[in-house]
Amino acid sequence: MPALDVPLPLTATPAAWLAVALADLDAVHQDHLHCERKAAQSALSLMRSYPERSDLVVAVARLAHEETAHVVQVTQLLGKKGKEATMDFGDEYAAALRDLVRRGEPGRLLDRLLVFALIEARSAERLELLAGAIPDEATATLYGGLASAEVRHRDTFLELAAAAAPDTWRERLAVLARAEADIIAAMPIRARIH
Amino acid sequence: MPALDVPLPLTATPAAWLAVALADLDAVHQDHLHCERKAAQSALSLMRSYPERSDLVVAVARLAHEETAHVVQVTQLLGKKGKEATMDFGDEYAAALRDLVRRGEPGRLLDRLLVFALIEARSAERLELLAGAIPDEATATLYGGLASAEVRHRDTFLELAAAAAPDTWRERLAVLARAEADIIAAMPIRARIH
Repeated sequence: MPALDVPLPLTATPAAWLAVALADLDAVHQDHLHCERKAAQSALSLMRSYPERSDLVVAVARLAHEETAHVVQVTQLLGKKGKEATMDFGDEYAAALRDLVRRGEPGRLLDRLLVFALIEARSAERLELLAGAIPDEATATLYGGLASAEVRHRDTFLELAAAAAPDTWRERLAVLARAEADIIAAMPIRARIH
Repeated sequence: MPALDVPLPLTATPAAWLAVALADLDAVHQDHLHCERKAAQSALSLMRSYPERSDLVVAVARLAHEETAHVVQVTQLLGKKGKEATMDFGDEYAAALRDLVRRGEPGRLLDRLLVFALIEARSAERLELLAGAIPDEATATLYGGLASAEVRHRDTFLELAAAAAPDTWRERLAVLARAEADIIAAMPIRARIH
């Protein structure tokens, strides 16, 4: 992994979020299930756009391979708790980040990689907070493992970004990391991953 | 797996297809890469539509998990042969099958499951033909393994269909299998999986 100038995520999650999340963990798990699925789908859509970049294809296919295993784990966690998964009504946070992606290449590829890195970074931060606070030991262990995976995925996207745009990725990352911090600060605090 | 009244696929691939495919195996691999990706994407889209069906979610997430591993294998095969992957310009075969899916539930779920089963069945048949004819032993072995996986995936979708519509799935399968046979018979014979 290339060394970073900025912490990722750039800002810490508001302290109030953890209490809200812990007060309705089932809702968090239900949202999280969709996050894992959408991470796999985003990885596959990247592969559809850039099939000729074999390093990228292998990296994102492996990432989707892991995310689909997490889908199974979170589904089984909900089952163990006697909870049904719920419909996915969209994610304004991810939508706001996607709006920052430039339309023309080569900026588009760089921006997609960096936005995915930022989403993984924020998810990792919050899963780690949950891992440290969830009373049930097995669930906390699961979340700790998932948080580590998200950190690795963040780094995968950063490595792909550095390879795709070696001269410009840091500067663009600083811009997008700042934007991500503003978006997360403006979001309502809810029992969701973001 | 529930016993079937009809063979799947219902009809054998035209004999001419294998010679055309063997004459341009690189094109077959390039198409096949997208088939594996799209199979994973279709599985995840099913999960998005029916998150409350936890058996379905776990089954299709596991299926997507396998398909993403196949994406890596086919990408590595292309790399070994010094070939780049190509853009995906769509798949008229799958599009024609998707057009048969009813819009209203519960028929929609049943039809999506059966269409996916039919696509897996046809893919399995053709991968098996390739496995028996590709001169390079390592590639033939890879294709044999992928063909077996597609048979398992076909059976996964049939089991989900039987669970979703125990009284009507056989009758609907017979209709859709006949339609699939007509669609494949009308397709041009090309160096593609379908």
